[in-house]
Amino acid sequence: MARFVTVSDPADPRLADYVRLRDVNLRKSLEAEHGLFIAEGEKVIRRAVGTGYPARSFLMAERWVEPLADVLERTDAPVYVADDATVEAIAGFPVHRGALASMRRLPLPAVADLLTGARRVLVLEDLVDHANVGSIFRCAAALGVDAVVLSPRCADPLYRRSVKVSMGAVFAIPYARMTSWRDGLAELRAAGFTLLALTPDQSAVPLDKALSAAARHRADRVALMLGSEGDGLSSRWLDEADQPVCIPMSPAAMDNGVDSLNVVAAAAIACHALMR
Amino acid sequence: MARFVTVSDPADPRLADYVRLRDVNLRKSLEAEHGLFIAEGEKVIRRAVGTGYPARSFLMAERWVEPLADVLERTDAPVYVADDATVEAIAGFPVHRGALASMRRLPLPAVADLLTGARRVLVLEDLVDHANVGSIFRCAAALGVDAVVLSPRCADPLYRRSVKVSMGAVFAIPYARMTSWRDGLAELRAAGFTLLALTPDQSAVPLDKALSAAARHRADRVALMLGSEGDGLSSRWLDEADQPVCIPMSPAAMDNGVDSLNVVAAAAIACHALMR
Repeated sequence: MARFVTVSDPADPRLADYVRLRDVNLRKSLEAEHGLFIAEGEKVIRRAVGTGYPARSFLMAERWVEPLADVLERTDAPVYVADDATVEAIAGFPVHRGALASMRRLPLPAVADLLTGARRVLVLEDLVDHANVGSIFRCAAALGVDAVVLSPRCADPLYRRSVKVSMGAVFAIPYARMTSWRDGLAELRAAGFTLLALTPDQSAVPLDKALSAAARHRADRVALMLGSEGDGLSSRWLDEADQPVCIPMSPAAMDNGVDSLNVVAAAAIACHALMR
Repeated sequence: MARFVTVSDPADPRLADYVRLRDVNLRKSLEAEHGLFIAEGEKVIRRAVGTGYPARSFLMAERWVEPLADVLERTDAPVYVADDATVEAIAGFPVHRGALASMRRLPLPAVADLLTGARRVLVLEDLVDHANVGSIFRCAAALGVDAVVLSPRCADPLYRRSVKVSMGAVFAIPYARMTSWRDGLAELRAAGFTLLALTPDQSAVPLDKALSAAARHRADRVALMLGSEGDGLSSRWLDEADQPVCIPMSPAAMDNGVDSLNVVAAAAIACHALMR
């Protein structure tokens, strides 16, 4: 059973996990240092707890205690109860969903362990935008991709906004982070994955065609690589891939200056094609 | 050749087109009343002008006059030049892209005219979020969908945020707005379109299968219907469709509570399938 503690001082040191939730730089270092992440809203908190992440503490308006009673019953973590103004003063913005939890991160698997048994994986290189990472995890989970491998600098799936945008799907799909960008793809290759690199370059093989060919050659392990929002995949990774692949664009649209999809739309199409 | 006018008073009535750009309710009524929309940033302004929308005026920081010189040379509209603080005071936020244009809307075609010659169309019912509408137009344009039909209440593709998120793709694909929600689908049916209604309901026919069947039956005009962010398609429209169709989800993900895609991911997959 949780301990309930009413709080009203935004500077209370017990609430340090929740400060300035929109200050990306502060949050990145604070969350890394303490090995925590923030779950926001009843649904996401439920999923985080249900996945097995241990709670460090909760912070919520009184009205959320009842709807979350079954979750709070089974935790030893303190539950800080505050009015909306106090929560806003701590978090730095009005928390519409009214309930926050500070969760302890769990160690990520090594890439080699993650790949054991996986047949279809996504590899994300250096995505910057947390919302994009969250959306891509949601697509990958919903469509049945087995796992996601992140480059060393790719944005964090457990950052509050990633978790929120993914609707908790970041908890539903296993992932790992490479320790080396330079050698990262070697592990995928060693595990027998065919590496397909998604590029807007229309001279590349269409994705569907490459996947059919892979199926014909009984390549039963396929990794689809997606690059960052602005520049796409690095030339090093493009060169290292087995094949660059593209999503065919309408020639008329390209004449009109519409020559690419955003990374989430591309990922959705790619995951769907991968799992057909 | 444009007339250049230096301005510094945020209350200058000549700048009324640009006030409080983030105030959705104000902007909706102001833009409807004056038949205008706002293009933001050099690239989007170029596309709007290139598409043939007439400019009412421009508002920009001095540094944008040179990069846009070729556009401004060919317009009779006034170009208001102001420092960043003045632009921010008018717009209500710091306009990072530094250049704005107020464009005159052009009359939309009637749905029946839009459909002449179109073979693959999207139909959007009551989407609320302007960013989603912009993203969906970008997918539809890039992948070669012929046209988009909007329900009477669907969010406006020419709202500033839709235009921005679409990277100007809203100018690259023709669209029309139904005058009646109740009778709107009848026009599509009269034009010989097979109506496929996208639903998360996994008992519906998979989208790819329905499209293959349509191809076998030589149904050469297909309309794909997408519903609003929260509730999906209305039951009336679902009932009226020829067939409900779904994007198959991973059963494991559904057990984990990941039971749907967001509307942009679904639209991307649907447009790609439609154009294969």
